[in-house]
Amino acid sequence: MEPQDLLGSLAGTLTTVSFVPQVWKLWKSRSAEDISFGMFSIFAAGVVLWLIYGIMIHAVPIVLANSVSLVLVTAILVMKIAFRS
Amino acid sequence: MEPQDLLGSLAGTLTTVSFVPQVWKLWKSRSAEDISFGMFSIFAAGVVLWLIYGIMIHAVPIVLANSVSLVLVTAILVMKIAFRS
Repeated sequence: MEPQDLLGSLAGTLTTVSFVPQVWKLWKSRSAEDISFGMFSIFAAGVVLWLIYGIMIHAVPIVLANSVSLVLVTAILVMKIAFRS
Repeated sequence: MEPQDLLGSLAGTLTTVSFVPQVWKLWKSRSAEDISFGMFSIFAAGVVLWLIYGIMIHAVPIVLANSVSLVLVTAILVMKIAFRS
């Protein structure tokens, strides 16, 4: 594995895994007031396009990372709707 | 430009631009209670690695998109700290 591949994989892991503490925070607090629905819906649309892109160029890490991101971002959007006051 | 390049550029634009409504929401409401500091700090670390990766492989779109993301994510982190109650 080239150094840049390792760096790219680590970068992708961080930007994907980052959503876990946000999911956990919303789940615990049952509050999502300050979360922007706009942000997470536009981000989700981008992740869907990354997923299609990854499938088109047969890039397994892009497909994997964006599949996980889509699940986490969808969870945030669902909680944003569910916990609205 | 190949179709997959167009798709990748659109995906990158969406996942970068998505942070704008979150920045705007926090700025307007002066509240960042539900924002996870963990999420945005891990995401920022990932973006820095993407930036280094983009510079290493001479990929201008990756460098551009992640430079913009870093500014927006930093703004969110600064507001998370500034608006703490």
